[in-house]
Formats: sequence, C-alpha cells, structure tokens
Amino acid sequence: MRTLKLTLSYDGTRFVGWQRQSEGESIQGLLEDALARFEGAPVSVQGAGRTDAGVHALGQVASVHVTCAHDTATLTRALNAHLPEDIRILTVEESDPAFHARFSARAKTYRYQIRNTPVANPFERAYVWHLQEPLAIDAMNRAAALLVGTHDFAAFRSAGGDAVGTVRTVTRSACCETSGLVTYEISGSGFLRHMVRAIVGTLVEVGRGWRDPATIGALLAGATRADAGPTAPPHGLFLVCVDYD
Amino acid sequence: MRTLKLTLSYDGTRFVGWQRQSEGESIQGLLEDALARFEGAPVSVQGAGRTDAGVHALGQVASVHVTCAHDTATLTRALNAHLPEDIRILTVEESDPAFHARFSARAKTYRYQIRNTPVANPFERAYVWHLQEPLAIDAMNRAAALLVGTHDFAAFRSAGGDAVGTVRTVTRSACCETSGLVTYEISGSGFLRHMVRAIVGTLVEVGRGWRDPATIGALLAGATRADAGPTAPPHGLFLVCVDYD
Repeated sequence: MRTLKLTLSYDGTRFVGWQRQSEGESIQGLLEDALARFEGAPVSVQGAGRTDAGVHALGQVASVHVTCAHDTATLTRALNAHLPEDIRILTVEESDPAFHARFSARAKTYRYQIRNTPVANPFERAYVWHLQEPLAIDAMNRAAALLVGTHDFAAFRSAGGDAVGTVRTVTRSACCETSGLVTYEISGSGFLRHMVRAIVGTLVEVGRGWRDPATIGALLAGATRADAGPTAPPHGLFLVCVDYD
Repeated sequence: MRTLKLTLSYDGTRFVGWQRQSEGESIQGLLEDALARFEGAPVSVQGAGRTDAGVHALGQVASVHVTCAHDTATLTRALNAHLPEDIRILTVEESDPAFHARFSARAKTYRYQIRNTPVANPFERAYVWHLQEPLAIDAMNRAAALLVGTHDFAAFRSAGGDAVGTVRTVTRSACCETSGLVTYEISGSGFLRHMVRAIVGTLVEVGRGWRDPATIGALLAGATRADAGPTAPPHGLFLVCVDYD
C-alpha cells in the first residue's frame, strides 16, 4: 500500500465544494473517480480543507492510499488528463503511511480578494468580491491584527461545522491593497466553518466605518455569531497552501 | 447630437464576438441595446476592433451618437447596471463629432498569452493557450522582431475580412516570458482578419523549433496563408488598447 500526497489547484465556481455530496460535482468526488480508474477499485481521498461551494484553491492538499504501481509523474499526467480543466493536479508525492492531509496539517493559509474600485474587472468576476465604496484599509488592518493569537472564534463560526471546540490559533492576519485589489491573508492551525468569510464580512464593516477596529476584542471574548459581521461571499476566497512538518 | 467615446473591457468567452450577428450574444448588440434604453431609440455603436468569438478586450473603444442628456458618469454607472458582468464600461467621454472609433484610430495593441508549463493554471483556462512543450522564447523574439515595419501581411490573413489591401505597418512586436507565462504583444496601425492569431501560430512553430525565425522574411514577401503557421485559438487574445491622436 502506498500513501500519496496530492497538491492541487481548482476554480471552485461550478462545484458543490470540496466534499462529495449526494448531488452535484465535488472536487473530492471527481478526484476519487479519476484515481479509481488507475487503482481499479474505489478509493477514498482526504482533503486538508473542506472548501465550500464556490471557494477556490491554489494549493489544496489531499491524501490517498493506493496499490497501483504508476510512478508519481505518470499519475500527475494521467489524473490531469481525466480531470476537468478547472481542477489541476500540481504534484503527486510519495508520503509516509501515517500521512493524513487533514490531521497531519500544521497550518493553513487562506486569501480573500476584494476589488475596491468603482468599476469591476470582468476577468476577475468569479474571484473577487466587488465593493465600490472605498474601504479604510488601515482600520481593517488594525482590526485584522487583533485576530492574531489563540482565541475563542465562536463569533466567527457558522452552524453545521463538526469541529471540536471553538478555540483556534491564528499566526498571521493582514490586509494589503494594490491598485484597488484588497487582499486579506490569514494563517492558522485550524479554521471553523465559514470562519474566514465571517472575519472578512466583519473587517469590511470596519473598512466601511460601521464598526470600530477595537470591537474585534469583544468578538473574541464570548460574543455570538450575531455580534460579528455577515459572511462574505464564497467566490473571493482561496485556500492558498497547507503546511506540514 | 453628442458623440461619445466609450472604453470597455470584456471577457469574450461566451460571446459570438464584438459584432452583432443574427444569432447569439455580441458585445456590440448588448451595448446598443443598453444605450437604446437611455436614448429611447435604436442606436448604432462602432467598435475600434471587431474582436472574434472568444477574444477578450482590456480596452476596446466604441463610438456612438446620442441625444440623451445624461452626464458621462451617470451613463457609465447606468450602462454597467444594465450590461452583464462580463462586459464593463470603464469610461464614457464626450468626443468630437467627427470621432469614429474605427476610422479615427491611429494604432491598436493586441496581447496573446501562452501558458508554457507542464500543468495548466485552472484560473487562466479561458485566457491562455496552454502549450506544455518548452518554447524557445529567444527564437520567437527574433522572428517577432522581423514583423516590425511596413509589410504585406497577406500570408497572415484569413479569408472573410473586408479590409482593403494587405499592407500594414507594425510598430512593435515582441515576446516576453515570466514564470512560464509567455506574452506576445503587437502594435500597429491596422490588422487583417485573424492576423495576430496567424502570427502567434507561426511564432509557436518557431518556438517549437519547427521553423527558422528567418522564414518570417519569406512570409512577408509574397507567401500565401498556407505558408504560415496555423491560427492560434481565440481565447489567448486580448485587444489591449486603441490609440487616437
């Protein structure tokens, strides 16, 4: 039995999300179907992050146990030949038998893109949240910095996640703006369901002047989901990379 | 009567091209329909370049005569509210009554994008031609440079264009490569039908080592379309900008 580590990129626009569902196409489902062709039997693929419908990935990581003998370069080419163009396998690597894409992950990084100009860019429409009103990036950055550390993120959690507890450690949280494209990046050991999108919705309230950056402190001290901002739309969100030891 | 100059950007993926056709959605058709709402009467819009089906524009220019009294900022917002998201009006400007987007144009610049890496990028799939085999960029650049000047471009012309003559002046023609993205840019006073795509198809033959760069000279001296390379696919091509005096 071999354990493979797959790194992949996908445009999440038309998928029901990473996870296989009873209806609709999922990245996990298409990847399992493509791998099963070479394995000659059903396979089960584990993803590092269960991206929601419409969420993209630059460097999602998946793990799978297989018995097939194809080398990793052949598998990369063969999987890409069988997967649709909006999913691309970047690398396939041999891994330790104990490797599990989700449980072995040490940290994940997400990026959220906001186009903050009066007119949208038609080529970005599936990859940014377009907000015409100018955002106060400095205030957003002050608020973003308050998220760094180990905190109770219950106020940024949507119902339906299966994670245990709501305390997580964020190691980096920062906004930058270049030519009207506002990029928010967050790295941490783990994320609750819709956590990044709830954070972005809250930071945008700060950027609009509707909320003081200091209110982030209260949100991390026993507030509820209703106290934070709305969940930002999925199509601005990218899973950038997953780190392992 | 006012003459307006519109600068617009569009993702050409799902359109039949710039020009209104009997079937399918065109950029010209949607723009004329949107303008007619504010004018209260049919309008005729002239485009600087008739981009083909699947070809994109970063800065297409169109001209139109209207009588409506809306200021240009209001028109920009109103047109964008009525146009689909894959077409965006960047600016609307008052112009000289004699201004005609096509006949007043002094120069146009096109860009063609080739992704030259083993694995494609899923976010670019509608905007690049993906070629896995490494291209010899230096040879392509030597060939590209030979196109600069006033030449007979008959070998790079597809049937069906309505242009008079096949002599055109190219002022700039160059390739560059950054992180596996090969970009070819060409500027000139005018372009024949499919000319840029036929040039790119020919440059790719050079890049693959199938054709010597020096053969460009013969192609500009009385050769026929069959002597040049194939027409590159439309989705890598962008009309970048149109220059006026």
